[in-house]
Amino acid sequence: MSLHSELDRLRVVLVSPRNPLNIGAAARAMSNFGFLHLRVVNPYELAFREARSAVGATPLLARAEEFKTLGEAVADCTLVVGTTAVGLRQLQHPVRRLEQAAPLIRKRLAASPVALLFGSEKRGLSNEDLSHCDWLLRIPTREEHRSMNLGQAVGICLYELARNAQAVPKPQKHTAATAAADLERLTALLLDALRSSGYLKASPSGPQKRRSAAPTDEKIRRLVHRLHLSATDAELTIGIFRQIFWKLGSPKSPLP
Amino acid sequence: MSLHSELDRLRVVLVSPRNPLNIGAAARAMSNFGFLHLRVVNPYELAFREARSAVGATPLLARAEEFKTLGEAVADCTLVVGTTAVGLRQLQHPVRRLEQAAPLIRKRLAASPVALLFGSEKRGLSNEDLSHCDWLLRIPTREEHRSMNLGQAVGICLYELARNAQAVPKPQKHTAATAAADLERLTALLLDALRSSGYLKASPSGPQKRRSAAPTDEKIRRLVHRLHLSATDAELTIGIFRQIFWKLGSPKSPLP
Repeated sequence: MSLHSELDRLRVVLVSPRNPLNIGAAARAMSNFGFLHLRVVNPYELAFREARSAVGATPLLARAEEFKTLGEAVADCTLVVGTTAVGLRQLQHPVRRLEQAAPLIRKRLAASPVALLFGSEKRGLSNEDLSHCDWLLRIPTREEHRSMNLGQAVGICLYELARNAQAVPKPQKHTAATAAADLERLTALLLDALRSSGYLKASPSGPQKRRSAAPTDEKIRRLVHRLHLSATDAELTIGIFRQIFWKLGSPKSPLP
Repeated sequence: MSLHSELDRLRVVLVSPRNPLNIGAAARAMSNFGFLHLRVVNPYELAFREARSAVGATPLLARAEEFKTLGEAVADCTLVVGTTAVGLRQLQHPVRRLEQAAPLIRKRLAASPVALLFGSEKRGLSNEDLSHCDWLLRIPTREEHRSMNLGQAVGICLYELARNAQAVPKPQKHTAATAAADLERLTALLLDALRSSGYLKASPSGPQKRRSAAPTDEKIRRLVHRLHLSATDAELTIGIFRQIFWKLGSPKSPLP
C-alpha cells in the first residue's frame, strides 16, 4: 500500500463554512500535505464561490464536492472523526488528542475511506453533526485559549496525519469496516422498530415522517456508531431489525 | 524546568510581514499553544496596525515588540532558526525537517532564548536574513506544492514544538465495562426476540427451552461480545429488546 493511495482515502469535510479565506486556507494545506479530496456541506454559497474564484485557489478547490447534508457527505466512509476545541462537552464520544488520533486514522486509511470533519468557524460541529461521528479529536491547546482558526486547525491535523507517514504500520488483515451509509440504514430501521414496539412514541404522522424527535434520532445514531460493527455484523444486524420491524406489524411494508 | 518557562523562552519573529490577517493568525496560534513572545521586524506599518486593531486580536499582539532590523530582534537569543519552504537553495545551512528540529529547539529552550524566524509571505527570508540563522527548518510538504500560508506555517511549527511537551498523557476517562452476566442476559433476550420475530426458528418446546440450537446461541453471543458495550449501553439495549420481545409476544395489543 503506497503512502499516496492512503492519503487519497481521506475526505476532509468542512461543515457550513462561512469564510472564503478559511475555505481557501484549508484547501491550500490539503494540497501542501497531499490530501486531495475536499467535501463541503451546506456552505454559505457566496463564501464557497468566492473561495473557488480567488487568486491562487488550488485546483483541489475547483474539484471540491458539495453536499446538502452531512449524512450524504460521509456515506462512503468507514470511520467518521469530528474535531472539537471543547474536550468535555460531548461525554457520549471518546475524545482523543491529535497525536493519539492520527495513528488510528492512518491505520483505517490503509484499507478504506475516512472522513475528518471540521465545523463552522463560529459554532464548530452541532450535536446533530456529532451524532454522525465515531469519535472526536482535539488539538492540544492551552486551556486559556482553545479555539483555533479553521485554516490552521485543518493544517495542523493534516501535518500530523502526514507526519512520519512513511512509518505507517502495514494494514493488518482484519474485518471489513462498515460504511456510514449502512450505519444510517441500521439507525433508521432501529428507530422504526423502537416506535413500532412502543419503546419510543410514534408521531401521529407515522414512524417515517416525524419532525421533532431529533434528540432521539441522535441518541440512537450515537449508540449505533459506538457499536463499531464490522461490515458483516452490520449486515447481520440490519437483517435482524428488518425482520423484527416487519413482524412488529407493518403489514403494508413487505420484506424486500 | 517547567514547560511554561520553556515555552516562554521562544521568540517568534516575523520578518517583513505584509498581510494583517497573517500577523493575526500567527499571534492566535501562539496564544493557542502558549508561546507568548512575538517580535516583528520591519513590518508594513499599515498591516501591523490593522492586525493590532482587528476584532478578536490577541492581547499577545498588543504586546508584540517591533524592531527595525533582524539583528536587534534576535540579539538576546542563543539559537536562531530560520524557516524555509525551499530545501536546496541555501547550501550554507543545514536544513532539518520540523519533527527533527523540534527536539533540538526544545533542548535549547530549557536553558536560554531561541528565535524562530518566518519570512514575508512573498519572498520568505532573504539571504541577509539567513545569515543570522544557525540552521534552517522546513515543514515536510509535497514537492509539488511547498509554499505554505504564513499563519498555517507558524501554527504547525508551534504545534510541533508543544507536541509531546506535555507528555503526561491524562488517564483516559472511559466508561465502565459490562459484566459478562449482563451480556448473557442481552444474548438471551436477543435470541428470544429473534425467535419470536421468525428470524430464527423457534423450537417446538417454546422459545426459552430449546435444546440443540447451540451454534446459533454462540453466534449471537459472539455478536453481542463483539459490540463491546459499556454498562450504560448494555442496560439501554436490554431495555430495548425487552420491550421488543414483549411486543412481539403480545400481538393483540394495538400499536400505540
